[in-house]
Amino acid sequence: MVKKFKGLEKIEVELKDEVYKGIVMPNSDSETLFLKLESGYNVGINIKDIKKVKILDKKIDIKSSTVKVKHNKNLPTVSILHTGGTIASKVDYNTGGVVARFEPEELVSMFPELEKIANIKSIFVSNVFSENLRFKDYVNISKAIEKEIKSGVKGIIIGHGTDTMHYSAAALSFMFDNLPVPVVLVGSQRSSDRGSSDAALNLINATYFIANTEFTGVAICMHKDINDDTCLIMPALKTRKLHSSRRDAFKIINDEAIAEVNYSKNKIKMIKELKNEKGAWKSKNKFEEKVGILRTYPNLNSKQIESFKGYKGLVIEGTGLGHISIDNSPENKKIFNALKKLSKSCVIVMTSQCIFGRVNMNVYSTGRELQKIGVISGEDMTTETAYIKLAWLLGNYKKDQVKQMISTNLKGEINKRIGLEFI
Amino acid sequence: MVKKFKGLEKIEVELKDEVYKGIVMPNSDSETLFLKLESGYNVGINIKDIKKVKILDKKIDIKSSTVKVKHNKNLPTVSILHTGGTIASKVDYNTGGVVARFEPEELVSMFPELEKIANIKSIFVSNVFSENLRFKDYVNISKAIEKEIKSGVKGIIIGHGTDTMHYSAAALSFMFDNLPVPVVLVGSQRSSDRGSSDAALNLINATYFIANTEFTGVAICMHKDINDDTCLIMPALKTRKLHSSRRDAFKIINDEAIAEVNYSKNKIKMIKELKNEKGAWKSKNKFEEKVGILRTYPNLNSKQIESFKGYKGLVIEGTGLGHISIDNSPENKKIFNALKKLSKSCVIVMTSQCIFGRVNMNVYSTGRELQKIGVISGEDMTTETAYIKLAWLLGNYKKDQVKQMISTNLKGEINKRIGLEFI
Repeated sequence: MVKKFKGLEKIEVELKDEVYKGIVMPNSDSETLFLKLESGYNVGINIKDIKKVKILDKKIDIKSSTVKVKHNKNLPTVSILHTGGTIASKVDYNTGGVVARFEPEELVSMFPELEKIANIKSIFVSNVFSENLRFKDYVNISKAIEKEIKSGVKGIIIGHGTDTMHYSAAALSFMFDNLPVPVVLVGSQRSSDRGSSDAALNLINATYFIANTEFTGVAICMHKDINDDTCLIMPALKTRKLHSSRRDAFKIINDEAIAEVNYSKNKIKMIKELKNEKGAWKSKNKFEEKVGILRTYPNLNSKQIESFKGYKGLVIEGTGLGHISIDNSPENKKIFNALKKLSKSCVIVMTSQCIFGRVNMNVYSTGRELQKIGVISGEDMTTETAYIKLAWLLGNYKKDQVKQMISTNLKGEINKRIGLEFI
Repeated sequence: MVKKFKGLEKIEVELKDEVYKGIVMPNSDSETLFLKLESGYNVGINIKDIKKVKILDKKIDIKSSTVKVKHNKNLPTVSILHTGGTIASKVDYNTGGVVARFEPEELVSMFPELEKIANIKSIFVSNVFSENLRFKDYVNISKAIEKEIKSGVKGIIIGHGTDTMHYSAAALSFMFDNLPVPVVLVGSQRSSDRGSSDAALNLINATYFIANTEFTGVAICMHKDINDDTCLIMPALKTRKLHSSRRDAFKIINDEAIAEVNYSKNKIKMIKELKNEKGAWKSKNKFEEKVGILRTYPNLNSKQIESFKGYKGLVIEGTGLGHISIDNSPENKKIFNALKKLSKSCVIVMTSQCIFGRVNMNVYSTGRELQKIGVISGEDMTTETAYIKLAWLLGNYKKDQVKQMISTNLKGEINKRIGLEFI
């Protein structure tokens, strides 16, 4: 029944509990039908689950048009660096895959507002799903940023997959000192060829913010809420993806927004006081590879700790105020001993799987025992920021310096403790 | 300057950026001063950081009084099982440690409202910080619950540390079929001898809910917000600690509350339709020990996956819709191969470190590749619930059954997908 589709048909598919409406992608195989949904998402449907199919349109006409972009000397220039992900991509209906659109002309034809805000430079860095990025990719992105800074642009947008955008934002924050321009990471939760995509709003608002403020440094620009009008400029080191699919998936953790931006109303509301760094910019871009994250859980086995043997750094994502099971029960005792052994050669930092709030290892005996064997409080850093910071510190500083710097605020990653914050 | 304190003095301590007011605990040593703060928390202050000390009261008089409790035949009986944690504990000012108060008389003298709501039975199970609990402790708690069910009480409260309360709540949910009584886990973020403690409100509202509704099954009762009046009765399998210190730290994930309870206004608002299970109750209480959680991150090393060699179950807390780095770069390729090897003998389940939202492994090729090697979607389960469920399933069912049951809703842990939920 389904095999007869060649692709590009608009259909309605009825399953047991669901109905999907979308365009058949040409790479559907004999077991799976791939549909491009109106929401912008692709979905793979097991053909044997299909109860009924209705054809809505025999073949969708995919038009592609480009416009001629002229340089406007009254507008600033903004570089868009493409690293991959859903932003600024279109489905290639011939292969069913998502293809990147990198020419300024194509970007402007997709997002015509851009031309009114800035002169757009469009630069290919990579085309990688963000879950596949590694430290070496952060270095590549930083080199592309350096090139753009030298070319004298007003600011830089990094188009990035949302899965690990907050890790990359943290990496870029630590790598640059005295960054003279804004570097704003932008992602989207829906591919940009569909009406419901969030790509346009995020990209346009980021460009508008860069063109019209004096902000410098690294930030993330994503939807404020599920209304398609306002974006938040979020602090790169205090932000996290907190929903797997919503357009407002990114949330600020233990901090506040830098600004709210609404291009359609020509409104930028600055929230945080700008503390732009002064002095000549420079970058330190080494990362220690032997750094990891251990998320604790009840019934943890000491083998998981031993798997980090030879590591230079470890972030433990503990429970509550920063705990891991280390009492005198035989298995927990093993965990304590494994940690004690590891801590002799490895910088161990504690964060909390509570996500919000602060680690405080002085309240309970568990925390105090951990401090005695050298575990360092991650304060109110997110696990992601602590991990990237630790790898970056170990790549660029000596161990003693790292131990001191990890719980010291360098770039806004640690807020000052206000009382005990026990609201 | 600090050494002269014997304990029980009320003092004000000035540090560089902070001022603390509290009672000196007698176990303060020559390096650290332990203060019991008015918030109910203890804090350890490094003596060399102290700038100034002011004595507010030379010795606080710690009074202890107990009342005589009479059985009221018009009220139901509620059992409070004490497992440990901050709830129903007082600071022992002689040692500075927190001691548990287990006699009904002492509970009622601490929380006099209890006597008006129910006859209280108070039972000691253990005195363990919840971060130290292991699967064997879940079995002990379940046996104590069985005993109380047989004794014919109206309901059971589990006093529990907050760090891993949601893991224990999940364990108890799966262990019992057709639970004939309510089992409500209650914790507190402040010890119960201080005015600002949340112990009283949580315990009183839980007792009031048990005494006055027909709810059966497992739930969590904690503050709705930072106002000290209303608690939420939260679904045991869809709740998580989401702040390290706030009283309203527990949040419902991908679901809604069972009820809102405000004892001071005699108000219970039922929110969720009750689906009480019928039939004879029974319990299955085995857990497979060789089950773990792997939280993914950029630059993950395949060794972390290999550390689960010989495991029967693994929950991967992936990124976004359920991803892990498995593209063709050499290091990521190693991760894919390690996963492929492990999946031959181990049931691997995917959850999302986004916390909120649903895993969907049909949208991107990464998810589809993972499904091909046998990784199973955890749907909208929290990582904690998926982990406990997997360990419990592997303890009680055959591997083929486990693979089918893990992504099937058994006890409310998986909500039906509504469309694609891409708000």
